[in-house]
Amino acid sequence: MLSLDKVFNAQTVLKSIVRETKLVRAYGIAPECELYLKPENLQITGSFKVRGSAYKIAMLSDEEKSKGVIACSAGNHAQGVALAATKNGIRSLICLPDSAPISKVEATKGYGADVCLVAGCYDDAYQKALELKESEGYTFVHPFDDENVIAGQGTIALEILNDLDSVDAIVVPIGGGGLISGIAYTVKQIRPSIKVYGVQVAGAPSMYNSVKDGEIESLASVSTIADGIAVKKPGENTFALVREYVDDIVLVTDDEVASAILALIEKQKMIAEGAGATAVAAVMAGKLPVDGKRVVCVVSGGNIDVTSLSRVIDRGLLNSGRSSSMLIELIDKPGQLKEISRIIADHGGNVTGVHYEKGNTESVNGCFLRIEMETRNFEHVNLITRTLREEGFKIV
Amino acid sequence: MLSLDKVFNAQTVLKSIVRETKLVRAYGIAPECELYLKPENLQITGSFKVRGSAYKIAMLSDEEKSKGVIACSAGNHAQGVALAATKNGIRSLICLPDSAPISKVEATKGYGADVCLVAGCYDDAYQKALELKESEGYTFVHPFDDENVIAGQGTIALEILNDLDSVDAIVVPIGGGGLISGIAYTVKQIRPSIKVYGVQVAGAPSMYNSVKDGEIESLASVSTIADGIAVKKPGENTFALVREYVDDIVLVTDDEVASAILALIEKQKMIAEGAGATAVAAVMAGKLPVDGKRVVCVVSGGNIDVTSLSRVIDRGLLNSGRSSSMLIELIDKPGQLKEISRIIADHGGNVTGVHYEKGNTESVNGCFLRIEMETRNFEHVNLITRTLREEGFKIV
Repeated sequence: MLSLDKVFNAQTVLKSIVRETKLVRAYGIAPECELYLKPENLQITGSFKVRGSAYKIAMLSDEEKSKGVIACSAGNHAQGVALAATKNGIRSLICLPDSAPISKVEATKGYGADVCLVAGCYDDAYQKALELKESEGYTFVHPFDDENVIAGQGTIALEILNDLDSVDAIVVPIGGGGLISGIAYTVKQIRPSIKVYGVQVAGAPSMYNSVKDGEIESLASVSTIADGIAVKKPGENTFALVREYVDDIVLVTDDEVASAILALIEKQKMIAEGAGATAVAAVMAGKLPVDGKRVVCVVSGGNIDVTSLSRVIDRGLLNSGRSSSMLIELIDKPGQLKEISRIIADHGGNVTGVHYEKGNTESVNGCFLRIEMETRNFEHVNLITRTLREEGFKIV
Repeated sequence: MLSLDKVFNAQTVLKSIVRETKLVRAYGIAPECELYLKPENLQITGSFKVRGSAYKIAMLSDEEKSKGVIACSAGNHAQGVALAATKNGIRSLICLPDSAPISKVEATKGYGADVCLVAGCYDDAYQKALELKESEGYTFVHPFDDENVIAGQGTIALEILNDLDSVDAIVVPIGGGGLISGIAYTVKQIRPSIKVYGVQVAGAPSMYNSVKDGEIESLASVSTIADGIAVKKPGENTFALVREYVDDIVLVTDDEVASAILALIEKQKMIAEGAGATAVAAVMAGKLPVDGKRVVCVVSGGNIDVTSLSRVIDRGLLNSGRSSSMLIELIDKPGQLKEISRIIADHGGNVTGVHYEKGNTESVNGCFLRIEMETRNFEHVNLITRTLREEGFKIV
């Protein structure tokens, strides 16, 4: 049974392993409320996950410890288990599908785990982990549906309450539900007036649907940039705890998550992964009743690969008019590119790509010119296109 | 005269305005030393600059305060002065060239300054600021060559010494020299055995050249992605302090700075601007004798615009084989793209761009195919190109 004692005990046990991440006052992200961030992206391993697995592992019996632990994950949970096991001086084996990115495999090994690459997908790796648990006697460390794991995540609530007076609301990402279960349970024991809100992405609303319908449901598929919370089915413990202690759950879109990642970069100089930015996304998008309130958003992790980050930024630049692309239909005669370049340069646009394309133009001699530019904002884009039109160019 | 008393006094005065940024232990960036970061990118306004200007402003007489302050900057100094003046309840006017990015103008206004946009370049804005200082009686807040500004920056050294036992070396970016002057002076008064190293970029080596030649020199031009330290000429006070108290100065390239920015993102989930990453770049590139030492790198700021950040990331991805581009010469017949796509997909490459180009191929029927891909690393790129060659494709 989960108890407040366990959460306090976890806090003591975790002292030598995890960082006490200090709340950061965030200005400019959501001016209508007093926003604080709980930066678990700055936690050791780049995610809160290490709290739960480290407490779970510390509580094992000596016999269990001597046999080691096993887990199945290609993400933050793997690194948390690996580090926690190493810090406790025991063996860990992480099963991964062989399609897992090399960077994740290397990071997991780097924290001291043995890695077992299993041919196939996540489900194959999971089956293999269960087999090895049976045959070798490892303890399986579940990523969320385990009371000691949940108690470990609950230590985040103790730190928030210790760090800040009179919090009105805490906003927490939900995947399997371990993080919010620990936080909501702890907060409601100590200061029940504080609201605890959960956030899921529209592409993976498993807990949202289950709570709404009053029973655990499985999604057939999940699709989101917030891969850390792309979970098809809530846990049994976490479902019960969320129903009892969480005030509301809202959904955010991938575009809202991308905007939140960008805002955290620009305003807080901080990298969040998709899942880690969902709580901030919900507040930014006005999906929660927190105007004028003192709100803590848990930024649960920062392990986004740089390729994804690059895409998020590119999309954010397009969405805010700071880059743009236009297609100009023109007569294929000398001097046109020169004239277009001059107009763009005169207005402070910075050309980053030019492509000529044949196509179904009005004139047989026509062609299309695709121009990519760095711009300041949508007004700036409009100014440039308006001027080009005034000078006789046809923008498609 | 600069004195240790002033630095201690600055620490007291600044308590209610600046954040005491806590050192962060950085694993995995430079394994050969014990690396800590002083994260002034997480400072209020996103840069250390607010320390110096806030202390300068707090020390003004009541009469000076009543007339307000003026500064000339398109960057971190502007925001520092604006916030410091607002916190002290006095007026600030910031002169900017009218070509300054809108985002910087808005940020400066956001901290409560009045903004005077001056037609022309930085030098024109500077002249205008001097005129207004004379005609209106404003106090001019110099970005670095002022003893109270330097004393304010020195508070960073007090925090480092308070936060960490037995530091061996502190590494500090140098632009005009205000930051390193304050840190080196303070450290050498208290713990002279600690080494203080300065870092400049190869595209703006003004202090480096001046110290080497023993006299203040001006650069004709500067060119670097580290715009925050692109300074043509050191200050007189800062030059004298650096000569006396700094142990060595080294240079880093823009590519080394870009790699450091990427490493801070990937390992520390933290955004640094170019100038802010130079100290880390020097350690990563092995330019300082710090193997086995306990080293603090000052990450001086995080105000990089997202467009630049996107370019740095793209370059880093190319430099590490995580994206790649290849040109294939092929006979223009059906089915070739299909075959190439199959080979790339079978090996786990992710195509992100395809362009057909006519060109001077061997066969009259030939053409060039440009393929852009996301890849895992250089080995992965080589595997794909080798396989394509084995299947008969000619990669240019």
